[in-house]
Formats: sequence, structure tokens, C-alpha cells
Amino acid sequence: MNQPHPFDAAIRLEPRGEGHWRGNTQEAYGNMVGPFGGATAATALAAVLAHPARQGEPIALTVNFAGPVAQGPFDIEAMAVRTNRSTQHWSVQMRQGADVVATATAVLATRRETWSSVEAGFPQAPSAEDVPRTPPLDRVRWTRAYDMRFVQGPLQIGTPPAGEQDSVSLLWVRDEPPRALDFCSLAALCDVFFPRIFVRRASWVPIGTVSFTVYFHTDAATLAAIGTHHLLAHARAHQFRNGYFDQSAELWGPGGELLAVTHQIVYYKE
Amino acid sequence: MNQPHPFDAAIRLEPRGEGHWRGNTQEAYGNMVGPFGGATAATALAAVLAHPARQGEPIALTVNFAGPVAQGPFDIEAMAVRTNRSTQHWSVQMRQGADVVATATAVLATRRETWSSVEAGFPQAPSAEDVPRTPPLDRVRWTRAYDMRFVQGPLQIGTPPAGEQDSVSLLWVRDEPPRALDFCSLAALCDVFFPRIFVRRASWVPIGTVSFTVYFHTDAATLAAIGTHHLLAHARAHQFRNGYFDQSAELWGPGGELLAVTHQIVYYKE
Repeated sequence: MNQPHPFDAAIRLEPRGEGHWRGNTQEAYGNMVGPFGGATAATALAAVLAHPARQGEPIALTVNFAGPVAQGPFDIEAMAVRTNRSTQHWSVQMRQGADVVATATAVLATRRETWSSVEAGFPQAPSAEDVPRTPPLDRVRWTRAYDMRFVQGPLQIGTPPAGEQDSVSLLWVRDEPPRALDFCSLAALCDVFFPRIFVRRASWVPIGTVSFTVYFHTDAATLAAIGTHHLLAHARAHQFRNGYFDQSAELWGPGGELLAVTHQIVYYKE
Repeated sequence: MNQPHPFDAAIRLEPRGEGHWRGNTQEAYGNMVGPFGGATAATALAAVLAHPARQGEPIALTVNFAGPVAQGPFDIEAMAVRTNRSTQHWSVQMRQGADVVATATAVLATRRETWSSVEAGFPQAPSAEDVPRTPPLDRVRWTRAYDMRFVQGPLQIGTPPAGEQDSVSLLWVRDEPPRALDFCSLAALCDVFFPRIFVRRASWVPIGTVSFTVYFHTDAATLAAIGTHHLLAHARAHQFRNGYFDQSAELWGPGGELLAVTHQIVYYKE
């Protein structure tokens, strides 16, 4: 009997009436507390994409992590707040019992071919095959669900990097076990970066993402063509200040296609 | 008799019961169609900040422009969906008649002093006093509401820039007439950049921001100390692709303080 891929189990939603679903967090995507935020974000997007009124492909997704998500069941409501000719705006709420644990907004669109141009530069890196896999972290279960191959800026707890300090990371990454790329797994991959403050300070501090945004620069056919190949993922912070830092990152296909640009702002303690 | 500053008129909200307000777009912030998106975003934030349950200062604001905003009255509803010990999550809806024209989410927080560090570099630029004001655009009324002094990447319709093509802009900018900086005016300033595709292609094309995010890296005291000084604003696109491009930008205080990092994704036609 075929087991579903653990990611498909993590984002699986059981219908509970129009626009309502129930899901269950999965151990395989466990974080230090609760589930991996990328899995939560992907589940919010999955609800929108599963809605019968859904029209188009994702352009923008913002998830606000309102409070801790407990391991276990959760309820999602997705509502189209406006449908235009080529765009559709969604509002999503995730609850556990009476508590709102996350809210999200998503914009879908039907795209047409137009003049196009990439301004960001595809980072220089050896190919994924030439970079060894970085071992997952014992204390962070979800890191086993990704094959990460760091080119720059790995997590080195207790070993602050020598020389100039920054929080830039560059890595090849894909689902582990391999799974064909789609919008939901791309959304989760956008949250795959270790918190920049862990990288910068080479130590664990309490953190929590408060708001997370993905801009999708791709389409289903491009994602299907990439399949199970690694993506090249490039992240940095702009500022750490009085309890909050931001992070911006790009995710590239192996052929140099810019698939997504993602941003988040994260709480940290001391 | 003192007239209020035009920006204060643009974001003025008349209470209509708890969490409900009515506002009016202002001619001074007129765009080619409807009002300047920055004014709309600032008004959504103003509703949150005016709410009696409000707790803390802005950390993140995302505004989704669901449909065209007509010049005239609008209704805003702001609701705290979750209040934690140090953070508060808000959901905002702006309507004109039965139509949702914008939705927004905001995260507020009470900050504490922590280890802090800026990783982004303050751009090299001559001081604002040494750069002449760029004349506002005749066809875009809101550009008269800002004093813009371009160091790089001005709008040159019909005159594509020579040499390497990119969409980077660097400018000094403040409200015109001058107005002391606060969170609402900073949010509006985050949308002050001409659409990157105008800069890149040196031509007008139909565009519309669909989703806009601001991460606030500052506090009310820092903003008050900057007062009416110019901010240094630095914007670029990552990709233009099949009808949508993104933009990321930083807004710096004149002393090199990183005040806000802002992102948006924008529809464009051909």
C-alpha cells in the first residue's frame, strides 16, 4: 500500500462544509515548539487552492502567525473576498478550538504572456550534486524533511563564523524524500531558512515568525518541469532591532528561473 | 484658521461604532485612477492605531488592493483577531458600498531593548540639500504631495536610460508641505516609488499594486526625532514576469537608521 508523502499528509484537508476544512499537524514537520511554519503556510494555501471557487494560480501569500500552533487538529476557513476578471483575493483563518492561531491572505491570478525580465542575479554556486548534504538537526524534526546542501552560511551553533559577520545563507534544498515541486511545497520551502539570528549569532535564542510573505514568480508547468530537482535558496537579514528581525530570500530553479521571492519578520528574545 | 496637513485629511477617520470608521479620499493624493495606494495603506494602519484596544507599535502591515478605490467616501473595519502578551494581530477591511476594495493585516508589538544590528548598508548618496527637487508629474497629482530628490533611477518617460538596464531608484523624499514623520506617513512613503516597470521601460503601462507589505524597524521616538527631514529611499525589482513584477525597498533616516523595509507585487499589462 502506498503511503502518501509526509508533506501531503501535513497539508491534507478534510472538507467540513464549503470553505471549511480540518487538518492535522504531522510529527514529520515538528518544530522546536509546534509545527514548522512553512507547513502551516502551505496548508493555508492548500485550503485556497482546494476551494471550488478558486480561480487562477498564486501570486502572493501572507501568513500571520498569531499564536503558537499546537501539534494536533486545526480548522481552516478560506473565503474569497473579491473575484475580479483576472485576480482573486482570499482571506484565511486557522483556529485551534476558540483560538485564532494564524490568519492569511492570498492573491490568485490568471496570467498572460507579457514582456518579462529577471533583474536579480542567479547566485554563483557549485551544482547540487557537488555539495554534500548537511546533516539535519537532532532537535528540529522538520529539518529531516528537507535535503539541504549549504554553499554559504550554514548553522554553526557555538562556532561563530570568523571574519566579517553577516547572516547570508545560500543552499540547495528539496523535499526529503523527494517530491515533485508544486505551489504548496514551494511556499513551505520559502520558510526553510534557519532563523537569521541563529546564523548570525551562532546560538539558539527563542524566536517566532510573526508575518511571512511569498511572491510567486512562476506557474504550475514550470514547477512540474523542475520536479524533484534541488532549488537554490538565498537568504539574508536587513536588520535585527529590539526584538524583531526581517529576512528576505529568493528561491531559484536549477536552470536559473526565479520561482519565488519571500520575506518575513521574526520575533527574537535578547 | 489652521488647515490640517493634506495627509492628515487623507487619513482622517470618523468613528462609526467600535472598530468602524468612515474616511474620504483626498484630491491631493489622487493617482491616475483613484487615490495613491500609499494613502490607502496609511489609512488602514490609522484605523488600527485609532482603535481603543490597540496595544503596541506597528511591526508589520500587509495591504491587499482587491479592486479599484473610487475617489470619495469609504468604510473601514478593524478587528483585533488575537492579543498576546507582547503582540497583537489585526484584520482590516475597506469597503465602498458593497465592494471590498482592500483588505489588510497588521501586527503590533511592545518592544524591549535587545542586541541589535543593521546588516543592510546605508546607500552612498549626496545629502538631500545637495540634490535638486525633481519636479512632480503633471498627470499624477499625489507626486506634488512629496518632495522627491533623485540620486539614481528617476522616471524618464520616453528616454530609456543608456547602458545597463535596471530598475533601481535611490531618492531623498519627504512630505510636501513638510510634516513630522509618524508610522502612518512612513507607511505611505513606502509606496512612494514609481512602478519599477515605468523606470525600467521608460514608458507608461497600465499597472496596479495587488499586495503591499511594510516591516517597521523603528519606534515613535525615532520617527519624531527625524521630524520633517528627508528619508533616503532605495528600491529595485527582482523580476517582471507574465503580468506581475515585485519591488523591494528600504527607507532610511538621514542619520543612517533603517526605518522600514517594504515589498510589493504589482500587476502590469504588456
